[in-house]
Amino acid sequence: MAETATFSDARVTNPHGPVIAGEPAGESRNDAPVALGFSPAEKDAVYKVIRARRDIRVFLPDPVPDDILGRILDAGHRGPSVGFMQPWNFLVVRDQETRRRLQELVERERVIAGQHYPDSQRDYYLRLKVEGLMDAPITLCVTNDPTRGGPHVLGRNTIPETDLMSTACAIENMWLAARAEGVAVGWVSMYRKEDVREVLGIPDHVDPVALLTLGFTPHFPDIPVLERVGWRKRLDLTTLVYEERWGTPVRQ
Amino acid sequence: MAETATFSDARVTNPHGPVIAGEPAGESRNDAPVALGFSPAEKDAVYKVIRARRDIRVFLPDPVPDDILGRILDAGHRGPSVGFMQPWNFLVVRDQETRRRLQELVERERVIAGQHYPDSQRDYYLRLKVEGLMDAPITLCVTNDPTRGGPHVLGRNTIPETDLMSTACAIENMWLAARAEGVAVGWVSMYRKEDVREVLGIPDHVDPVALLTLGFTPHFPDIPVLERVGWRKRLDLTTLVYEERWGTPVRQ
Repeated sequence: MAETATFSDARVTNPHGPVIAGEPAGESRNDAPVALGFSPAEKDAVYKVIRARRDIRVFLPDPVPDDILGRILDAGHRGPSVGFMQPWNFLVVRDQETRRRLQELVERERVIAGQHYPDSQRDYYLRLKVEGLMDAPITLCVTNDPTRGGPHVLGRNTIPETDLMSTACAIENMWLAARAEGVAVGWVSMYRKEDVREVLGIPDHVDPVALLTLGFTPHFPDIPVLERVGWRKRLDLTTLVYEERWGTPVRQ
Repeated sequence: MAETATFSDARVTNPHGPVIAGEPAGESRNDAPVALGFSPAEKDAVYKVIRARRDIRVFLPDPVPDDILGRILDAGHRGPSVGFMQPWNFLVVRDQETRRRLQELVERERVIAGQHYPDSQRDYYLRLKVEGLMDAPITLCVTNDPTRGGPHVLGRNTIPETDLMSTACAIENMWLAARAEGVAVGWVSMYRKEDVREVLGIPDHVDPVALLTLGFTPHFPDIPVLERVGWRKRLDLTTLVYEERWGTPVRQ
Protein backbone atom coordinates (compact mmCIF):
# COMPACT_ATOMS: atom_id res chain seq x y z
CA MET A 1 0.00 0.00 0.00
CA ALA A 2 2.41 2.60 1.19
CA GLU A 3 4.89 1.94 -1.58
CA THR A 4 2.31 2.73 -4.20
CA ALA A 5 1.99 6.12 -2.59
CA THR A 6 5.61 6.93 -3.30
CA PHE A 7 4.49 7.75 -6.83
CA SER A 8 6.23 5.61 -9.41
CA ASP A 9 4.59 7.93 -11.89
CA ALA A 10 3.40 11.52 -11.71
CA ARG A 11 -0.22 10.39 -12.11
CA VAL A 12 -0.82 7.22 -10.18
CA THR A 13 -4.01 5.83 -8.79
CA ASN A 14 -4.23 6.72 -5.16
CA PRO A 15 -4.40 3.54 -3.08
CA HIS A 16 -5.85 5.30 -0.06
CA GLY A 17 -9.11 6.53 -1.44
CA PRO A 18 -10.34 10.08 -1.65
CA VAL A 19 -7.85 12.61 -2.94
CA ILE A 20 -8.89 15.58 -4.98
CA ALA A 21 -6.24 17.97 -6.14
CA GLY A 22 -6.50 21.27 -4.31
CA GLU A 23 -9.46 20.24 -2.21
CA PRO A 24 -9.83 18.53 1.14
CA ALA A 25 -10.55 14.82 0.85
CA GLY A 26 -14.19 14.40 -0.01
CA GLU A 27 -16.21 11.61 -1.61
CA SER A 28 -14.45 8.41 -2.62
CA ARG A 29 -12.67 8.73 -5.96
CA ASN A 30 -10.19 5.90 -6.14
CA ASP A 31 -9.28 6.74 -9.69
CA ALA A 32 -8.43 10.38 -8.98
CA PRO A 33 -4.84 11.38 -9.68
CA VAL A 34 -2.69 12.06 -6.64
CA ALA A 35 -2.04 15.77 -6.64
CA LEU A 36 1.47 16.76 -7.57
CA GLY A 37 3.17 13.38 -7.45
CA PHE A 38 6.83 13.17 -8.38
CA SER A 39 8.13 10.96 -11.20
CA PRO A 40 11.32 8.93 -10.61
CA ALA A 41 13.24 11.48 -12.70
CA GLU A 42 11.89 14.36 -10.64
CA LYS A 43 12.71 12.55 -7.41
CA ASP A 44 16.24 11.96 -8.68
CA ALA A 45 16.59 15.67 -9.44
CA VAL A 46 15.61 16.56 -5.88
CA TYR A 47 18.22 14.20 -4.41
CA LYS A 48 20.77 15.37 -6.98
CA VAL A 49 20.48 19.00 -5.93
CA ILE A 50 20.64 18.08 -2.24
CA ARG A 51 23.86 16.14 -2.88
CA ALA A 52 25.39 18.69 -5.27
CA ARG A 53 24.88 21.76 -3.05
CA ARG A 54 28.21 23.17 -1.85
CA ASP A 55 29.45 26.13 0.17
CA ILE A 56 31.51 28.08 -2.37
CA ARG A 57 34.25 30.68 -1.83
CA VAL A 58 35.52 31.12 -5.40
CA PHE A 59 33.43 33.26 -7.70
CA LEU A 60 33.50 34.66 -11.23
CA PRO A 61 32.63 38.33 -11.75
CA ASP A 62 29.75 37.62 -14.18
CA PRO A 63 26.48 39.15 -12.99
CA VAL A 64 23.58 36.97 -11.89
CA PRO A 65 20.62 37.70 -14.21
CA ASP A 66 17.64 39.28 -12.48
CA ASP A 67 15.23 36.50 -13.48
CA ILE A 68 17.44 33.89 -11.84
CA LEU A 69 17.84 35.99 -8.67
CA GLY A 70 14.06 36.46 -8.60
CA ARG A 71 13.44 32.72 -8.73
CA ILE A 72 16.01 32.11 -5.99
CA LEU A 73 14.37 34.69 -3.70
CA ASP A 74 10.93 33.23 -4.41
CA ALA A 75 12.25 29.81 -3.40
CA GLY A 76 13.35 31.32 -0.09
CA HIS A 77 9.97 32.91 0.46
CA ARG A 78 8.37 29.47 -0.12
CA GLY A 79 10.15 28.16 2.95
CA PRO A 80 8.22 26.91 5.96
CA SER A 81 7.72 29.23 8.91
CA VAL A 82 6.33 28.73 12.36
CA GLY A 83 2.75 30.03 12.48
CA PHE A 84 3.33 31.23 8.87
CA MET A 85 5.16 34.24 10.37
CA GLN A 86 7.57 34.58 7.40
CA PRO A 87 10.17 36.37 9.54
CA TRP A 88 12.72 36.92 6.76
CA ASN A 89 13.91 39.85 4.66
CA PHE A 90 16.35 39.72 1.77
CA LEU A 91 18.76 42.60 1.27
CA VAL A 92 20.49 42.49 -2.13
CA VAL A 93 23.87 44.24 -2.07
CA ARG A 94 25.74 44.79 -5.32
CA ASP A 95 27.53 48.06 -4.53
CA GLN A 96 31.26 47.47 -4.39
CA GLU A 97 31.98 49.96 -1.60
CA THR A 98 29.30 48.38 0.62
CA ARG A 99 30.71 44.93 -0.06
CA ARG A 100 34.19 46.23 0.77
CA ARG A 101 32.96 47.46 4.15
CA LEU A 102 31.33 44.09 4.85
CA GLN A 103 34.50 42.31 3.78
CA GLU A 104 36.51 44.38 6.27
CA LEU A 105 34.22 43.38 9.13
CA VAL A 106 34.56 39.73 8.23
CA GLU A 107 38.32 39.91 7.80
CA ARG A 108 38.69 41.37 11.29
CA GLU A 109 36.69 38.52 12.85
CA ARG A 110 38.58 35.96 10.78
CA VAL A 111 41.89 37.09 12.28
CA ILE A 112 40.46 37.17 15.81
CA ALA A 113 39.03 33.67 15.47
CA GLY A 114 42.37 32.33 14.23
CA GLN A 115 43.90 32.98 17.64
CA HIS A 116 41.76 30.21 19.15
CA TYR A 117 43.26 27.40 17.09
CA PRO A 118 46.29 25.35 18.16
CA ASP A 119 49.35 25.67 15.93
CA SER A 120 48.57 22.43 14.13
CA GLN A 121 45.21 23.77 12.95
CA ARG A 122 46.16 27.42 12.55
CA ASP A 123 48.18 26.79 9.41
CA TYR A 124 45.21 25.14 7.74
CA TYR A 125 42.91 27.85 9.00
CA LEU A 126 44.93 30.78 7.73
CA ARG A 127 45.17 29.23 4.29
CA LEU A 128 41.41 28.67 4.02
CA LYS A 129 39.49 31.16 1.93
CA VAL A 130 36.58 31.90 4.23
CA GLU A 131 34.68 34.42 2.11
CA GLY A 132 34.31 35.67 -1.44
CA LEU A 133 32.54 38.96 -0.69
CA MET A 134 34.60 41.04 -3.14
CA ASP A 135 34.56 38.36 -5.85
CA ALA A 136 30.89 37.43 -5.99
CA PRO A 137 28.71 40.06 -7.69
CA ILE A 138 25.96 39.81 -5.06
CA THR A 139 25.96 39.70 -1.28
CA LEU A 140 22.54 38.72 0.02
CA CYS A 141 22.02 39.68 3.63
CA VAL A 142 19.27 37.49 5.08
CA THR A 143 17.60 38.85 8.19
CA ASN A 144 15.28 37.44 10.84
CA ASP A 145 12.65 39.62 12.50
CA PRO A 146 11.55 37.97 15.76
CA THR A 147 8.72 40.49 16.19
CA ARG A 148 6.92 39.71 12.94
CA GLY A 149 3.49 38.26 13.47
CA GLY A 150 3.08 39.81 16.90
CA PRO A 151 3.77 38.43 20.36
CA HIS A 152 1.85 35.13 20.07
CA VAL A 153 2.88 33.36 16.90
CA LEU A 154 1.14 30.00 16.55
CA GLY A 155 3.47 27.18 17.57
CA ARG A 156 6.19 29.49 18.86
CA ASN A 157 5.13 29.64 22.50
CA THR A 158 7.72 27.28 23.95
CA ILE A 159 10.61 27.44 21.46
CA PRO A 160 11.01 31.09 20.41
CA GLU A 161 14.00 30.31 18.18
CA THR A 162 11.67 28.57 15.72
CA ASP A 163 11.65 31.96 13.95
CA LEU A 164 15.38 31.62 13.31
CA MET A 165 14.95 28.03 12.19
CA SER A 166 12.29 29.20 9.73
CA THR A 167 14.69 31.72 8.24
CA ALA A 168 17.36 29.02 8.01
CA CYS A 169 14.93 26.85 6.04
CA ALA A 170 14.41 29.77 3.65
CA ILE A 171 18.18 29.96 3.21
CA GLU A 172 18.40 26.25 2.41
CA ASN A 173 15.61 26.63 -0.16
CA MET A 174 17.54 29.45 -1.83
CA TRP A 175 20.77 27.47 -1.71
CA LEU A 176 19.17 24.51 -3.48
CA ALA A 177 17.41 26.68 -6.06
CA ALA A 178 20.66 28.50 -6.76
CA ARG A 179 22.52 25.21 -7.21
CA ALA A 180 19.92 24.05 -9.73
CA GLU A 181 20.39 27.36 -11.57
CA GLY A 182 24.17 26.88 -11.61
CA VAL A 183 24.61 29.76 -9.17
CA ALA A 184 27.09 29.24 -6.32
CA VAL A 185 26.36 30.27 -2.73
CA GLY A 186 28.79 30.86 0.11
CA TRP A 187 27.40 31.41 3.59
CA VAL A 188 29.55 33.91 5.51
CA SER A 189 28.94 33.96 9.29
CA MET A 190 32.09 35.59 10.67
CA TYR A 191 30.82 39.03 11.63
CA ARG A 192 29.28 40.85 14.54
CA LYS A 193 25.61 41.49 13.88
CA GLU A 194 25.81 45.07 15.16
CA ASP A 195 28.54 45.86 12.60
CA VAL A 196 26.44 44.56 9.71
CA ARG A 197 23.40 46.42 11.05
CA GLU A 198 25.37 49.63 10.94
CA VAL A 199 26.70 49.17 7.39
CA LEU A 200 23.29 48.19 5.96
CA GLY A 201 21.03 50.37 8.12
CA ILE A 202 19.22 47.41 9.66
CA PRO A 203 17.02 48.20 12.71
CA ASP A 204 18.19 46.98 16.11
CA HIS A 205 15.37 44.47 16.53
CA VAL A 206 16.16 42.72 13.23
CA ASP A 207 18.95 40.14 13.13
CA PRO A 208 21.24 39.87 10.10
CA VAL A 209 21.68 36.10 10.37
CA ALA A 210 23.57 35.36 7.15
CA LEU A 211 25.65 37.02 4.48
CA LEU A 212 25.26 34.87 1.38
CA THR A 213 27.65 35.48 -1.50
CA LEU A 214 26.00 34.66 -4.83
CA GLY A 215 27.59 34.29 -8.22
CA PHE A 216 28.87 31.89 -10.82
CA THR A 217 31.86 29.73 -10.02
CA PRO A 218 34.43 27.89 -12.09
CA HIS A 219 33.96 24.81 -9.98
CA PHE A 220 31.46 22.97 -7.77
CA PRO A 221 33.59 20.49 -5.78
CA ASP A 222 32.43 16.90 -5.31
CA ILE A 223 32.98 17.03 -1.55
CA PRO A 224 32.95 19.93 0.91
CA VAL A 225 36.17 21.95 0.97
CA LEU A 226 36.57 21.44 4.74
CA GLU A 227 36.44 17.68 4.14
CA ARG A 228 38.92 17.86 1.25
CA VAL A 229 41.52 19.82 3.22
CA GLY A 230 41.20 17.47 6.19
CA TRP A 231 39.55 19.97 8.55
CA ARG A 232 36.67 17.65 9.47
CA LYS A 233 35.25 14.40 8.08
CA ARG A 234 31.66 13.67 7.24
CA LEU A 235 30.23 11.67 10.15
CA ASP A 236 28.77 8.23 9.52
CA LEU A 237 25.00 8.76 9.37
CA THR A 238 24.27 5.50 11.19
CA THR A 239 26.05 6.85 14.29
CA LEU A 240 23.68 9.84 14.32
CA VAL A 241 20.40 7.93 14.13
CA TYR A 242 18.76 6.42 17.20
CA GLU A 243 15.61 4.35 17.54
CA GLU A 244 12.92 4.92 20.16
CA ARG A 245 15.33 6.41 22.73
CA TRP A 246 18.52 8.48 22.67
CA GLY A 247 21.55 6.20 22.44
CA THR A 248 19.81 3.13 21.00
CA PRO A 249 21.55 2.45 17.70
CA VAL A 250 19.50 1.85 14.60
CA ARG A 251 18.97 -1.78 13.49
CA GLN A 252 21.25 -2.61 10.55
CA MET B 1 28.00 34.68 -20.55
CA ALA B 2 26.30 34.19 -17.28
CA GLU B 3 23.13 32.88 -18.83
CA THR B 4 25.02 30.10 -20.54
CA ALA B 5 26.12 29.01 -17.10
CA THR B 6 22.54 28.37 -16.04
CA PHE B 7 22.81 25.07 -17.91
CA SER B 8 20.25 24.76 -20.65
CA ASP B 9 21.48 21.18 -20.88
CA ALA B 10 23.08 18.84 -18.37
CA ARG B 11 26.32 18.82 -20.35
CA VAL B 12 27.02 22.28 -21.70
CA THR B 13 30.28 23.84 -22.69
CA ASN B 14 31.52 25.93 -19.83
CA PRO B 15 31.88 29.56 -20.93
CA HIS B 16 34.22 30.44 -18.10
CA GLY B 17 37.14 28.19 -18.88
CA PRO B 18 38.64 25.53 -16.72
CA VAL B 19 36.21 23.22 -14.99
CA ILE B 20 37.08 19.63 -14.28
CA ALA B 21 34.56 17.52 -12.47
CA GLY B 22 35.72 16.69 -8.97
CA GLU B 23 38.99 18.59 -9.24
CA PRO B 24 40.02 22.17 -8.56
CA ALA B 25 40.14 24.31 -11.68
CA GLY B 26 43.36 23.49 -13.50
CA GLU B 27 44.50 23.84 -17.09
CA SER B 28 42.18 25.41 -19.62
CA ARG B 29 39.62 22.96 -20.96
CA ASN B 30 36.87 24.99 -22.53
CA ASP B 31 35.17 21.92 -23.89
CA ALA B 32 35.00 20.14 -20.56
CA PRO B 33 31.50 19.39 -19.31
CA VAL B 34 30.30 21.48 -16.40
CA ALA B 35 30.15 19.14 -13.47
CA LEU B 36 26.64 18.23 -12.42
CA GLY B 37 24.69 20.78 -14.40
CA PHE B 38 20.92 20.69 -14.15
CA SER B 39 18.65 20.21 -17.17
CA PRO B 40 15.52 22.37 -17.47
CA ALA B 41 13.42 19.39 -16.36
CA GLU B 42 15.62 18.84 -13.32
CA LYS B 43 15.49 22.53 -12.45
CA ASP B 44 11.69 22.40 -12.73
CA ALA B 45 11.60 19.44 -10.35
CA VAL B 46 13.60 21.39 -7.76
CA TYR B 47 11.21 24.34 -7.91
CA LYS B 48 8.23 21.98 -7.94
CA VAL B 49 9.23 20.32 -4.68
CA ILE B 50 9.95 23.69 -3.06
CA ARG B 51 6.45 24.88 -4.02
CA ALA B 52 4.67 21.62 -3.20
CA ARG B 53 6.13 21.19 0.31
CA ARG B 54 3.45 21.55 3.00
CA ASP B 55 3.17 21.26 6.76
CA ILE B 56 0.77 18.35 7.21
CA ARG B 57 -1.37 17.37 10.20
CA VAL B 58 -3.50 14.59 8.66
CA PHE B 59 -1.84 11.20 8.28
CA LEU B 60 -2.67 7.68 7.17
CA PRO B 61 -1.54 4.77 9.35
CA ASP B 62 0.47 3.07 6.55
CA PRO B 63 4.11 2.54 7.55
CA VAL B 64 6.89 4.45 5.82
CA PRO B 65 9.19 1.88 4.15
CA ASP B 66 12.71 1.76 5.60
CA ASP B 67 14.41 2.55 2.28
CA ILE B 68 12.40 5.75 1.94
CA LEU B 69 13.11 6.77 5.54
CA GLY B 70 16.81 6.07 4.93
CA ARG B 71 16.90 8.35 1.90
CA ILE B 72 15.11 11.10 3.82
CA LEU B 73 17.60 10.90 6.71
CA ASP B 74 20.52 10.91 4.28
CA ALA B 75 19.11 14.07 2.70
CA GLY B 76 19.13 15.67 6.14
CA HIS B 77 22.71 14.62 6.76
CA ARG B 78 23.66 16.25 3.42
CA GLY B 79 22.61 19.61 4.82
CA PRO B 80 25.11 22.43 5.22
CA SER B 81 26.66 23.03 8.62
CA VAL B 82 28.85 25.76 10.00
CA GLY B 83 32.46 24.54 10.09
CA PHE B 84 31.09 21.15 8.91
CA MET B 85 30.11 20.50 12.55
CA GLN B 86 27.06 18.35 11.63
CA PRO B 87 25.37 19.10 14.96
CA TRP B 88 22.26 16.98 14.34
CA ASN B 89 20.92 13.64 15.55
CA PHE B 90 17.78 11.90 14.33
CA LEU B 91 15.71 9.91 16.79
CA VAL B 92 13.13 7.68 15.09
CA VAL B 93 10.14 6.98 17.33
CA ARG B 94 7.54 4.43 16.24
CA ASP B 95 6.45 3.09 19.64
CA GLN B 96 2.85 4.04 20.27
CA GLU B 97 3.23 4.56 24.03
CA THR B 98 6.18 6.91 23.51
CA ARG B 99 4.23 8.86 20.90
CA ARG B 100 1.29 9.02 23.32
CA ARG B 101 3.52 10.58 25.97
CA LEU B 102 4.85 13.13 23.45
CA GLN B 103 1.32 13.90 22.34
CA GLU B 104 0.30 14.60 25.93
CA LEU B 105 3.14 17.12 26.34
CA VAL B 106 2.12 18.90 23.17
CA GLU B 107 -1.58 18.92 24.05
CA ARG B 108 -0.80 20.58 27.39
CA GLU B 109 1.15 23.38 25.69
CA ARG B 110 -1.53 23.77 23.02
CA VAL B 111 -4.14 24.52 25.68
CA ILE B 112 -1.82 26.92 27.53
CA ALA B 113 -0.97 28.81 24.32
CA GLY B 114 -4.66 29.17 23.48
CA GLN B 115 -5.13 31.46 26.46
CA HIS B 116 -3.06 34.16 24.74
CA TYR B 117 -5.40 34.67 21.81
CA PRO B 118 -8.24 37.18 21.77
CA ASP B 119 -11.72 35.68 21.45
CA SER B 120 -11.85 36.41 17.72
CA GLN B 121 -8.80 34.23 17.10
CA ARG B 122 -9.36 31.62 19.80
CA ASP B 123 -12.21 29.97 17.95
CA TYR B 124 -10.03 29.46 14.91
CA TYR B 125 -7.16 28.33 17.08
CA LEU B 126 -9.07 25.70 19.00
CA ARG B 127 -10.40 24.20 15.79
CA LEU B 128 -6.93 23.91 14.22
CA LYS B 129 -5.35 20.47 14.27
CA VAL B 130 -1.84 21.34 15.45
CA GLU B 131 -0.30 17.87 15.51
CA GLY B 132 -0.73 14.36 14.15
CA LEU B 133 1.57 12.54 16.58
CA MET B 134 -0.79 9.61 17.16
CA ASP B 135 -1.82 9.36 13.51
CA ALA B 136 1.55 9.43 11.74
CA PRO B 137 3.50 6.15 12.07
CA ILE B 138 6.80 7.94 12.76
CA THR B 139 7.79 10.81 15.00
CA LEU B 140 11.29 11.99 14.16
CA CYS B 141 12.87 13.99 16.96
CA VAL B 142 15.62 16.16 15.49
CA THR B 143 18.21 17.37 17.98
CA ASN B 144 20.96 19.96 17.93
CA ASP B 145 24.18 19.45 19.87
CA PRO B 146 25.92 22.83 20.35
CA THR B 147 29.05 21.12 21.73
CA ARG B 148 29.78 19.00 18.67
CA GLY B 149 33.04 19.94 17.00
CA GLY B 150 34.55 21.42 20.15
CA PRO B 151 34.62 24.98 21.44
CA HIS B 152 35.96 26.70 18.29
CA VAL B 153 33.91 25.64 15.31
CA LEU B 154 35.09 27.39 12.13
CA GLY B 155 32.79 30.30 11.28
CA ARG B 156 30.81 30.04 14.52
CA ASN B 157 32.82 32.52 16.59
CA THR B 158 30.44 35.47 16.42
CA ILE B 159 27.04 33.88 15.79
CA PRO B 160 26.82 30.76 17.95
CA GLU B 161 23.28 29.97 16.80
CA THR B 162 24.62 29.00 13.38
CA ASP B 163 24.58 25.45 14.79
CA LEU B 164 20.82 25.66 15.16
CA MET B 165 20.49 27.14 11.68
CA SER B 166 22.50 24.22 10.32
CA THR B 167 20.12 21.75 11.92
CA ALA B 168 17.18 23.69 10.49
CA CYS B 169 18.71 23.36 7.01
CA ALA B 170 18.93 19.60 7.57
CA ILE B 171 15.22 19.62 8.46
CA GLU B 172 14.35 21.49 5.26
CA ASN B 173 16.37 18.99 3.22
CA MET B 174 14.42 16.12 4.81
CA TRP B 175 11.14 17.91 4.27
CA LEU B 176 11.82 18.37 0.57
CA ALA B 177 13.09 14.81 0.11
CA ALA B 178 10.02 13.49 1.91
CA ARG B 179 7.72 15.53 -0.32
CA ALA B 180 9.38 14.12 -3.43
CA GLU B 181 8.84 10.62 -1.97
CA GLY B 182 5.17 11.39 -1.34
CA VAL B 183 5.75 11.36 2.43
CA ALA B 184 4.09 14.10 4.44
CA VAL B 185 5.86 15.99 7.22
CA GLY B 186 4.37 18.01 10.07
CA TRP B 187 6.70 20.07 12.24
CA VAL B 188 5.47 20.10 15.85
CA SER B 189 7.06 22.78 18.04
CA MET B 190 4.62 23.12 20.95
CA TYR B 191 6.51 21.43 23.74
CA ARG B 192 8.99 22.19 26.46
CA LYS B 193 12.39 20.82 25.56
CA GLU B 194 12.99 19.44 29.05
CA ASP B 195 9.80 17.36 28.80
CA VAL B 196 10.87 15.82 25.50
CA ARG B 197 14.37 15.20 26.88
CA GLU B 198 12.84 13.25 29.74
CA VAL B 199 10.58 11.09 27.55
CA LEU B 200 13.33 10.24 25.04
CA GLY B 201 16.35 10.12 27.37
CA ILE B 202 18.11 13.01 25.65
CA PRO B 203 21.14 14.48 27.53
CA ASP B 204 20.78 17.95 29.02
CA HIS B 205 23.27 19.59 26.66
CA VAL B 206 21.41 18.38 23.55
CA ASP B 207 18.40 20.35 22.32
CA PRO B 208 15.37 18.57 20.87
CA VAL B 209 14.56 21.30 18.35
CA ALA B 210 11.80 19.64 16.34
CA LEU B 211 9.29 16.82 16.47
CA LEU B 212 8.58 15.88 12.88
CA THR B 213 5.59 13.65 12.20
CA LEU B 214 6.19 11.51 9.10
CA GLY B 215 3.71 9.43 7.16
CA PHE B 216 1.50 9.24 4.13
CA THR B 217 -1.40 11.62 3.81
CA PRO B 218 -4.64 11.62 1.87
CA HIS B 219 -4.00 15.17 0.74
CA PHE B 220 -1.25 17.71 0.07
CA PRO B 221 -3.07 21.07 0.00
CA ASP B 222 -2.29 23.65 -2.67
CA ILE B 223 -1.80 26.41 -0.10
CA PRO B 224 -0.75 26.33 3.55
CA VAL B 225 -3.55 25.43 5.95
CA LEU B 226 -3.00 28.61 7.99
CA GLU B 227 -3.52 30.63 4.81
CA ARG B 228 -6.63 28.67 3.82
CA VAL B 229 -8.34 29.14 7.18
CA GLY B 230 -7.52 32.86 7.18
CA TRP B 231 -5.02 32.76 10.04
CA ARG B 232 -2.31 34.63 8.11
CA LYS B 233 -1.71 35.57 4.48
CA ARG B 234 1.41 34.98 2.45
CA LEU B 235 3.31 38.28 2.37
CA ASP B 236 4.13 39.91 -0.96
CA LEU B 237 7.75 38.97 -1.67
CA THR B 238 8.54 42.38 -3.17
CA THR B 239 7.83 44.01 0.20
CA LEU B 240 10.46 41.78 1.81
CA VAL B 241 13.33 42.49 -0.59
CA TYR B 242 15.53 45.56 -0.25
CA GLU B 243 18.38 46.79 -2.42
CA GLU B 244 21.72 48.04 -1.10
CA ARG B 245 20.28 49.26 2.23
CA TRP B 246 17.48 48.26 4.58
CA GLY B 247 14.25 49.95 3.54
CA THR B 248 15.15 50.69 -0.08
CA PRO B 249 12.51 48.89 -2.15
CA VAL B 250 13.56 46.74 -5.06
CA ARG B 251 13.32 48.23 -8.55
CA GLN B 252 10.24 46.86 -10.33
